[in-house]
Parts: sequence; structure tokens; C-alpha cells
Amino acid sequence: MNYAETLGSRAKACEKAAGTASTAVKNGALAEIETALRANADKILEANDLDLAAAKENGMSEAMQDRLRLTKERINGIADGVADVIKLDDPIGNVDFGSVRPNGMNITRVRVPLGTIAIIFESRPNVTVDAAVLCLKAGNTVILRGGKEAYNSNKCLCDIMRSAVAKAGLPEDVVQFVDDTSREVSSQLMKCSNYIDVLIPRGGAGLIRAVKENATVPVIETGTGNCHVFVDETADLDMAVSIVNNGKTRRVSVCNAVESLLVHENIAEKFLPMIKAKLDEHNVEIRGCEKTRKILGDCVVPATDEDYGTEFLDYIISVKVVSSVYEAIAHIDRFTTHHSECIVTNSLDNAERFKKEIDAAAVYVNVSTAFTDGGMFGFGAEIGISTQKLHARGPMGLMALTSMKYLISGNGQTRA
Amino acid sequence: MNYAETLGSRAKACEKAAGTASTAVKNGALAEIETALRANADKILEANDLDLAAAKENGMSEAMQDRLRLTKERINGIADGVADVIKLDDPIGNVDFGSVRPNGMNITRVRVPLGTIAIIFESRPNVTVDAAVLCLKAGNTVILRGGKEAYNSNKCLCDIMRSAVAKAGLPEDVVQFVDDTSREVSSQLMKCSNYIDVLIPRGGAGLIRAVKENATVPVIETGTGNCHVFVDETADLDMAVSIVNNGKTRRVSVCNAVESLLVHENIAEKFLPMIKAKLDEHNVEIRGCEKTRKILGDCVVPATDEDYGTEFLDYIISVKVVSSVYEAIAHIDRFTTHHSECIVTNSLDNAERFKKEIDAAAVYVNVSTAFTDGGMFGFGAEIGISTQKLHARGPMGLMALTSMKYLISGNGQTRA
Repeated sequence: MNYAETLGSRAKACEKAAGTASTAVKNGALAEIETALRANADKILEANDLDLAAAKENGMSEAMQDRLRLTKERINGIADGVADVIKLDDPIGNVDFGSVRPNGMNITRVRVPLGTIAIIFESRPNVTVDAAVLCLKAGNTVILRGGKEAYNSNKCLCDIMRSAVAKAGLPEDVVQFVDDTSREVSSQLMKCSNYIDVLIPRGGAGLIRAVKENATVPVIETGTGNCHVFVDETADLDMAVSIVNNGKTRRVSVCNAVESLLVHENIAEKFLPMIKAKLDEHNVEIRGCEKTRKILGDCVVPATDEDYGTEFLDYIISVKVVSSVYEAIAHIDRFTTHHSECIVTNSLDNAERFKKEIDAAAVYVNVSTAFTDGGMFGFGAEIGISTQKLHARGPMGLMALTSMKYLISGNGQTRA
Repeated sequence: MNYAETLGSRAKACEKAAGTASTAVKNGALAEIETALRANADKILEANDLDLAAAKENGMSEAMQDRLRLTKERINGIADGVADVIKLDDPIGNVDFGSVRPNGMNITRVRVPLGTIAIIFESRPNVTVDAAVLCLKAGNTVILRGGKEAYNSNKCLCDIMRSAVAKAGLPEDVVQFVDDTSREVSSQLMKCSNYIDVLIPRGGAGLIRAVKENATVPVIETGTGNCHVFVDETADLDMAVSIVNNGKTRRVSVCNAVESLLVHENIAEKFLPMIKAKLDEHNVEIRGCEKTRKILGDCVVPATDEDYGTEFLDYIISVKVVSSVYEAIAHIDRFTTHHSECIVTNSLDNAERFKKEIDAAAVYVNVSTAFTDGGMFGFGAEIGISTQKLHARGPMGLMALTSMKYLISGNGQTRA
């Protein structure tokens, strides 16, 4: 048995305890976690300091260091997040279908946990807690494999959670920490299909690709967003400026950020200078097609196909002038990552066509793509945003961490 | 581009046509398929004769030849199946969630097709049509890769379906035939994640394992069933005989067939001779534990752990005497394939425990496991029975062939 299998078999051993725990017991465990996080803030900060010191030594960028950094406020924020999950309805045991068949047997379909969920994630240590408590609330056991930059922080947070759940009467192995950040153990996890029911990668495109290519465990892909806004000829141009600017500059590092702008040729001469003026306020680099450059001038970098296919996660946007909604849709079809796509228009016909034809988790009409988020959709906390079509799509809340089973009862029915 | 990618790219090219086709167009295409199957019965039988001749030459067993054989009646049965799918409600476009958020934007969640579905299946040529029409009804394109034993039959059925859908105004590539039964092309399909959204293997344990281990395309596992019946000490023993016998002998080759019997020690001396007498009528071989052999004698073959872990799909059953519902559940936990598991009992406490703790797609109390089937559950035709927890579990009807997307509309909402 390799290391991942050892963790997996421990997780399986307490799957029943986690899966059949009452809502009261699970909420009790989350409350212990919340309390312990606040009580151990100093210890967490000490561990985080070790990670930050190493990060500085290794020349990590200021932006990345900020993602890694915990403060008393941030720890309280994480604890507040746990309190929010306590308030969410427990999906386990919900009946979402039931019928009596002609032969008198009863069928009900009930929500059950997925079982054991492994999460491979990068950088931000808050994911350790956010992901664990969502998995636990849905009755799952969880195996957490964070990045090596946050090793000390993640380990400390996991230790605190393990003690807290044990205090609440659940086996501590319902939360497990992968105490080895090597690629080898990461690969072991991906192949551990005898013990792990689902693997959720949270991180950059490289991580997602590696998991997709190597995992034999079922995977939920998350978070790659090459999101487009198409500004149609009938668009309210002020609204379009505000939607593009919000999507691009609100937070450039998130998956629902706008990466590419398509502009109808009939309004390009008017609209492009408007949006450029706005994006200039944030020093956004524009990479545009020939027509864009003709209108905006040589300050626009010529865009390549690679640019159109890139999720920049930076103050960069690609721009293309198109002749119709058809060309816009065809361009998006070619470069979409199926995350969030937006049309700004006043044409009902084009809005309907866009909604029907665009193949993405979230399709927007006259609304910023920045809303693709579990909280904004009203689902509460989320474990990630699925960009695949199987099982879950879009923001994944508690329901995405469940499966179902059919319960059939009767009095001796047999089949002819 | 390899062969699978060529098929995949053709499928993708007509995904939009399939996915946005109205119910009337899709039903029109199915009606053309139904008509064409009946009209071309002689041609289909000729193709099937080629397969049967080759099968005889290669010494295929009579039972397998029977699975391969088509007759006029069977072809009419397949066409009747198409008519049944026409009658099913079209899930595409259904709204299953909707809300207005505090900022005034509208969110609706609608059912959309999965996209392109590939099916790798063995032996029975009816699967070609059954699977294709279900995929089409749910707005998907489909790539069909049957076994080499049924090559001529499958190719003929596919050709007929392609002409029929073209007649109805859909691109013929919404249905594609993999005209190469080599393992290499099968492997290509498993890795074709740029074009294929889901891969569904239908066949024996070997096929399922190969797909699970090699596929980078998301997979829905189907159809391995090591199904147990636990006869508790409070069971109505006549009912138990009837449930075990029905599950074991109704059709031994199906995935919901009973493979293993667990008997409470307090009723074993009375019950085991009763069930043996019944199973003897069908010449079922019993492989039992020591206690079983003590009661039934040396005619019972000693059971090994391998027997307890085997889906016999034959007139063989493994038997074990257990001391309690706890031991029964622990045994099932060890050997289950998470398909269908049954308890026969009159104890409410044990029934509830069994339903709660057993981790399977279908958990039965006092009902035969033979009912795990889309038709029997009232879902209409099924594309298989999922034994995984992700996306779909149990009998998969049209809903299992869909995904969802979120449509968000508003009047310029941006996120703070």
C-alpha cells in the first residue's frame, strides 16, 4: 500500500461515521472547528510566518505572498466562513423522487454523500478549511493536498480541524492532511480509485491538465475561465463599458474575470475608444485584431490566436472586431473554456441565440461575468466552479458534494 | 488527427444542430429510424447472418450466439423501443431552478445536452439502436463502437440510422459508427477528451476496467453487479426463497442477478435446505462457508474469498452464514460492487440500518433485486445502470444524458 492508499483506506474506514452522522453532530464538529480556529490564531500565524519566510527567501512575488499571507482578520474571516456553512441546509437524506410502482413496491431516491473526496490545491491556505468543512457538512471524508508554499499553514490548520472533529465525537480521519507535497504522492492520489470517490483539483491550468491526463479517480474540473464579452451593435455602450471594466479589473486573478472582448463592427469606432479610456485607468494592456489597431492605433499590441486562447489572469485583454453575433459565437466556440460568456445587447433575437448556442456553465445577457460564484448565485459557500458537464456545472455548493441512492421496499415482490 | 479524433471533430461539428433541434425535429428523426428499421429488416438479417456464420466458425457458445442473433421479431422489438423513446418527455430546455437575486438579475438553470457521447459495447446489436436513440432524444451526438462479433449487424443498423436522421433534416454525423474494432481505436476513443464529453462502456468487467484505467474522457461506469441478499432471522422464509430464487434464476446473465446469499445463523438450519431445494430445480451450484456445508453437506463446494468477490453471471451462488445484520453489512461492504443489495427481514430496526449503511445504487427491503432497471423504476428506456456515484447512479434514463447551464440576464449589473 502506498502513502495515498494508506490515507485512502483510513478515510474509507470512517466513511460510514461521516456519512451517517446527524446534522447536529456534523454542525457540532463544524462549531468546534470554528472555535478552535479563533482560539489558535497565534499558532496559525506562527506556522504561516514560516511559509512566508521561505517564500521571501525563494523570491516569491508580492502578489503571491499576499495570497499566502494569513492575518488575525483573515483567520476570523475563515472562521466566519465555517459559521456560514453551519447555517446551510444539510442535503443528506433529502428525498428528491418517490413513487409507488404498479406492483406495490415503493421507490424513494435519497441524497447520500459522495464518500471520500480528495482535493489538490495551490497557494491560498484558506482553501484547506473552506473545502474541508463543505465536504464534512455533506457527510464526506476529505483528503487535503495543498501546495508546498503553504505547507506549514495547511498542516497547522488540518491539525486544528482534526482535533476539533474528534472533540465533537467524529473520527479525526474524516479530515486528513497529505503530509508530503511531492509530485509522486500527488500522482498516487490521482490513481487511488479504490479509495477515493472524487478528485477536485483547484489551481492553475497546469494542475488541472495534469490531473485530467493522469487521474483514474473521477475528476471534477474547476476554474479555468477564458471569459468573453460580446458587445453587440444594439448595446447600451455605457452599460457595455461598465460590464467589461467590471469583469476585467475587479479582480484580475479570478476565473470569472473577462479575458477577451468582441465588438460589433458597426459600433467599434465609437465603443473602442470609450472602453480604452476606461481600461487605461487600470493600465490594462490591449491586444487587438487589425481592425482594433486601425481604430485605437499602434498602442494596441497585435493579437495572436494564442492570445485569444489565453486566460491572462492579469491586466491584459484581447480584443476582436466581429461582423455579427454569428461570428462572435463562432469565435467563442473556438476559444471558450465553457466557464462564463456574456453578450451586451438590446436585440432579443441575438440574446436568445447567444443563450441557446453558447456552451458554457454561465451565459450572461447584460450582466457582468463577475457573478459566477456560489455566494452570488445564492448557493452559499462553494468548493469551486465546475467547467465540465458531468455531475456538476458552474458554482458547486453542498449539492455537488452528494450522490444519491434508490431505496426500494415491499412485501416480497419478484419480477416476471 | 487520429481516427477517433476525426470522428470526434465531425461529431462536434454537428453538436449545435443536435443540441438546438426542437423536440419535433428530434422525434421526427426517431420516427424515420423506426420506419427504416422495419422497412430494412431483410437487409439487417442478411448482415446479421454474416456475423452469425463467423461466430459459428469461431466456435462461439450457443448462449452467446443467441445474444448476437436478430430475428424479424427482435427487429420489430427494437423498432418498438424507438417508438417508446419518442413518447418520452424531452428533458432539454427544462428549467429546474430559477431565482431573482437581490440586485435584480435573473438566474435560471436549464437542462442542456452533454454534447458528444461515445459508447463502447459488446455483443448484442440492439444496443446500437437503443443507445443511439436515447442520446439523440437528449440532443447529443453519438459515436458507437460495438464489438467485432457484431460488426456487420452494427454497421448495417448505423447506416440505416444515419440515412434516417438525414431524411429528417439532421446531419447524418449525429450518429457515427466506429468502422474499426481494433483495440487501438478503442484506446484512441478513451483519450479523445477534446471532442468526446462522456464515454459509457457497456459490457463485461474487463471492458469496464480497461476504460476506467485508460480513459481521460469522463466515464460513466455501468453494470457490474455482485448483488447480495441477506436473509435475516426474522425473515418470512417463503418470501426469502422466492426473492433469492427470482434474483438468481430469472436471468443469470444480467447485472442485477443475485450472486451471493447471506443467511442469519439462527434460521440457517431451517432456511438453507428450503433454498437449496428451490435452486436445485435450476441446477444452481452452491459454494458455501463451513457452516453452510455442515448444514447442506458435501454437495456444497467450499467458498473462497474469490467466490465471494465474483460476479458469476451463471447458475452459481455463493453462500455464507452470518451471526448478525452487522456481520452481513460488513461482508457486503467488503465485496459489494455498489449495484443492488437486498435484506429480507421483518425487523424495522435492521431494515433501517441496512438502508442507511449499505452503499449501493439500489438498496432493497423485501423486494427482488431484479427490479433495478429503468423500465421497472418507471423511467422508460435506459442506457445502462451506473455503479458510480458521480453524475448518475442506478438506472440511467434521458436525464442522465443531460447537463445544465445557468442563464443570467439583467440590465447592466456589475459586482462590487
